[in-house]
Amino acid sequence: MGTDTQFDFVENGSVTSPLGFLACGVIAGLKKNKAPDLAMIESETECSFAATFTSNLFPAAPVQYDREICANSPKIRAVVANSGVANACTGLDGYNNAKRMAELTAGALSVPVGQVMIASTGRIGVQLPMDLIENGIREAAKSLTHNGGSSAAHAIMTTDTRPKELAVSFPVGDRIVTIGGMCKGAGMIAPKMAVAPHATMLCFLTTDADIDNALLSELLGNAVEASFNHITVDNDMSTNDTVILMANGASGAKIGKGSEAAEHFAEALGMVTEHLARSIVFDGEGVTKFVTVEVTGAASERDAELAARAIANSPLCKTAWFGCDPNWGRILAAAGYSGAVFSQENVSLDFDELPVVRGGLDAGTPESELAELMKRREFTVKIDLGEGEASATIWTSDFTYEYVKINADYHT
Amino acid sequence: MGTDTQFDFVENGSVTSPLGFLACGVIAGLKKNKAPDLAMIESETECSFAATFTSNLFPAAPVQYDREICANSPKIRAVVANSGVANACTGLDGYNNAKRMAELTAGALSVPVGQVMIASTGRIGVQLPMDLIENGIREAAKSLTHNGGSSAAHAIMTTDTRPKELAVSFPVGDRIVTIGGMCKGAGMIAPKMAVAPHATMLCFLTTDADIDNALLSELLGNAVEASFNHITVDNDMSTNDTVILMANGASGAKIGKGSEAAEHFAEALGMVTEHLARSIVFDGEGVTKFVTVEVTGAASERDAELAARAIANSPLCKTAWFGCDPNWGRILAAAGYSGAVFSQENVSLDFDELPVVRGGLDAGTPESELAELMKRREFTVKIDLGEGEASATIWTSDFTYEYVKINADYHT
Repeated sequence: MGTDTQFDFVENGSVTSPLGFLACGVIAGLKKNKAPDLAMIESETECSFAATFTSNLFPAAPVQYDREICANSPKIRAVVANSGVANACTGLDGYNNAKRMAELTAGALSVPVGQVMIASTGRIGVQLPMDLIENGIREAAKSLTHNGGSSAAHAIMTTDTRPKELAVSFPVGDRIVTIGGMCKGAGMIAPKMAVAPHATMLCFLTTDADIDNALLSELLGNAVEASFNHITVDNDMSTNDTVILMANGASGAKIGKGSEAAEHFAEALGMVTEHLARSIVFDGEGVTKFVTVEVTGAASERDAELAARAIANSPLCKTAWFGCDPNWGRILAAAGYSGAVFSQENVSLDFDELPVVRGGLDAGTPESELAELMKRREFTVKIDLGEGEASATIWTSDFTYEYVKINADYHT
Repeated sequence: MGTDTQFDFVENGSVTSPLGFLACGVIAGLKKNKAPDLAMIESETECSFAATFTSNLFPAAPVQYDREICANSPKIRAVVANSGVANACTGLDGYNNAKRMAELTAGALSVPVGQVMIASTGRIGVQLPMDLIENGIREAAKSLTHNGGSSAAHAIMTTDTRPKELAVSFPVGDRIVTIGGMCKGAGMIAPKMAVAPHATMLCFLTTDADIDNALLSELLGNAVEASFNHITVDNDMSTNDTVILMANGASGAKIGKGSEAAEHFAEALGMVTEHLARSIVFDGEGVTKFVTVEVTGAASERDAELAARAIANSPLCKTAWFGCDPNWGRILAAAGYSGAVFSQENVSLDFDELPVVRGGLDAGTPESELAELMKRREFTVKIDLGEGEASATIWTSDFTYEYVKINADYHT
């Protein structure tokens, strides 16, 4: 970071903010409530691309299909995604339906079938209703517009309460490069893309930079690791997690490996993915609080990450946050069973600006003050293990009645 | 197993069912609701003993103290335990208070201080009110009786809704050996004692067998591994988990390593610990369902265990069980991210007698039938990974509004 370029958040930014992209969302009829459920993004020209997927051993059919596209296609033109049905655990029929989604889209857009990527999110174990998908794709292909980004962002929502999208732009020489993004995800959230994915999290990123597949892959991997791989709502990893980044070069700005422009691109991409990742937590199922768990002073990065994830995923910590209960013993207990190595007498804990634990013991801040602080919509739990220099940050949420309600009622 | 001895569940069995043990529970005043909160068990004679403790890096003061007793004392006579305050994260003062609990008990019972073990459960980070403890111990020492087991079992309860206790007896030659036990635990439950403990789980076991420390340790380790280490309510490991087994030899039955009697003892001990472990899950915070997760066909025991624990701890699986939602995709997804290695097309899933998944796909059982089955108070989720011969079983519960309520309100 620390480069001195100007980064701008684009007003009403979306995947259609970069030049040369069209998008839309339509009602294919997969959702009972007749909300938009099929999104399409098309670039006017061929795109370089990069993608990362769930590491779940039950990858959904669209994930399997997309992996083949990644292996065989140097360029793509379009992405189509449906919500309502995940097309996961659907066997050969599911795979053929996934392939058919791509073929139908390629046909409707008159682009090569190898240049279409697909994604699905929704219920596992159910076959796609292909008649609805077929009509939806035909409808979508006719509905694409240069300002359809927001409409697409609505169509990939499941239990999300709001669409998640933005765009960031920055100069490269006399050109302006824009990166747009949208994502969905509210439950089954603990993505560890490529590195080790969880969660039904779909994210589509577009840019008008001119940048090759190899560099895109590297930059996307770093951005995803620093953002989506550091959020957790329920520690449940999905079968469908997908992140796709398309670059069509329409800005005329060429970005090469090792250049200052590549650094700026990395920074802007990081802004987009961090914003989207945080939006997922903020909009997590039943979430009332956004909690940043920051572990410092760990002996190793692995220890820092173990401790941060144990705290961020502890049902006891998460329910205490929901109840504004400064029950810090639960946080220390979670660090204590995380597998991280440290000595309890060296541990410090803070909630934002208030000291909670010093030397493993109560720091003496009145509980009423801590409880008051916890009423904030967003706060940071900072724990220092007093062992070394390594650190890790995980963004997480509280655990509420509403989460239980949403997930006990999801199906019925 | 498979020995042909007669094992009997003792009517109203408790820690005072074995010969030569006294116990009681009294009101020391640590709990706001003035429920019994201090338990004491004393043997009329010195006991061989074995114990296992939490592996949490924040071991509570009583755990630290007891470890010293284990290292230094060949025999013990008594155990004292309080609920209400965990005496964890309490530093040197906490340690001195723990030691004082042992000294007060030794004094009141006129036994050597090195022969008293202690345990605490309740809120972390708070010092024990030693005036109340002192009065409670004095009161308890006067209240011990040969049928006080049930009274003691009540006094160690925290969010438990009922006491958990039993006793099993079996013949050794012309003698009858009895093993009694009691435990508490409802939240912070995912013990992995010694091996890798979680949960505030206290368990006290008594027997009138004559059996040495080494054999007791071995048998206790096996029994705990097969019982308490295979339950999970919330995957939160406590700072205070403690299991203590005392053997006073009052039955006159000597049990030596490698004997048939030792096999019978192991079997009876397993019956006691399994019963107590299952009781903890049944009485877990907010629990409405007892779910046995059985993984078979795994490539290794580690894989079987990884898959079983991922399913048993998945908030999405647990909320679906609460809602009687046969959303089997969540179960497969949890197995898929568990780290266990397998191929999705070989996976089978059953709920009790109903097939759910065959070859990674919907087995075709109507969802209404599955939903009906899930109304059972207890059912088994059986997943076969189709890779090998290894298996694992974890006992777990659903995840409910009530769990959130209990844990968001615990403190206030």
